[in-house]
Amino acid sequence: MRDEYQVQLALVGELLSAMAEDVGTAMRHATAGLLGADRAAAESVLADHPTLIARRDQVEARTYELVALQAPVAADLRTLLTAPRVGADLERMGNLARHVARAALRRYPERAVVDQLAGVFASMADTAVRMAGKMRAVVADHDAELAAQLDRDDDELDELHRRMFGIMFAAGWSHGAAAAVDAALLGRYYERYADHAVNAATQVIYLVTGEHAG
Amino acid sequence: MRDEYQVQLALVGELLSAMAEDVGTAMRHATAGLLGADRAAAESVLADHPTLIARRDQVEARTYELVALQAPVAADLRTLLTAPRVGADLERMGNLARHVARAALRRYPERAVVDQLAGVFASMADTAVRMAGKMRAVVADHDAELAAQLDRDDDELDELHRRMFGIMFAAGWSHGAAAAVDAALLGRYYERYADHAVNAATQVIYLVTGEHAG
Repeated sequence: MRDEYQVQLALVGELLSAMAEDVGTAMRHATAGLLGADRAAAESVLADHPTLIARRDQVEARTYELVALQAPVAADLRTLLTAPRVGADLERMGNLARHVARAALRRYPERAVVDQLAGVFASMADTAVRMAGKMRAVVADHDAELAAQLDRDDDELDELHRRMFGIMFAAGWSHGAAAAVDAALLGRYYERYADHAVNAATQVIYLVTGEHAG
Repeated sequence: MRDEYQVQLALVGELLSAMAEDVGTAMRHATAGLLGADRAAAESVLADHPTLIARRDQVEARTYELVALQAPVAADLRTLLTAPRVGADLERMGNLARHVARAALRRYPERAVVDQLAGVFASMADTAVRMAGKMRAVVADHDAELAAQLDRDDDELDELHRRMFGIMFAAGWSHGAAAAVDAALLGRYYERYADHAVNAATQVIYLVTGEHAG
């Protein structure tokens, strides 16, 4: 019985790890859709989303069962109370990637980001996708060093986000209100995606150490 | 021991209820700050925020203790696994009210919303604040009828949000990119606030009935 319990507990971890990989892939494809006007890539984000949701449902159901049936203690209990919350962050990251993909499809075959902002968006997207990769490693391997890097990456993304507003609000902006609004919302999707990556990683590290960071 | 347990369980409910009231007040004050250029109201949102965070911390700490020490079953266990997630939604609502308050303060003594959008923003804010009141009643009294109304209110807010974009993207928009971006982000804060109200209410009803809605 106890062995079966350990197997089930490991499975919750594997599900979270798979979700982390899913949302990294989703944002990579959504960005290809956005900056390369790659329709197939954007559509794959929408097609893959149900898999993410199914995994989140599994995380929740298995967590509940394990707590209900096994009355776990200490470290295991912490894992089980934290797992659905990490799952919720990952789900939200998937939703944000979907927002980016939908914005790309809405403007297709045109590109949803004006040329003047393409560079800063490519940098924001690079940072976000790199963060997703690190977050995946934190979820899979509980790597505290990578978790600490995520805070610095997040600062970098916030700085890029400010630079984006600087470009839009400078005197030379000639693309009108609609393009500015698209950019503001898209910028926010990347920024929130990064916030949730930091949050998921922070919770995983709390799991491992029992200590809340800062 | 068991009586003490019931007292503690009730306390978690009271904390969530207080948080629900906090975030309703926060969005009411933030909106007064935004639409009435009321600086004191906007500042009160920032001043009150630490109370919300302290309550969320209490919800988490007490939930963990109760599960760890009491090995609760069935309905109680469901309450305890759901409570921190409702707390997370409420915290997020408080953060969104804070975003609105900060936007109001950034433009003070001017109003952050242009006249042309004041009407649709007043309607969005009314809907959001009304939803917060219903959500509070759902959290406090588990009123399933009010929870169902929240879905319709949310549709109403989404419709207002679309109307806002319609005004901004119409030919007569003369306020420039910065005002459009402010409005787009503010609109999103109200929309997300409403989404979290629906989500918190849905989880509370799940708590009570054990059934996920649609």
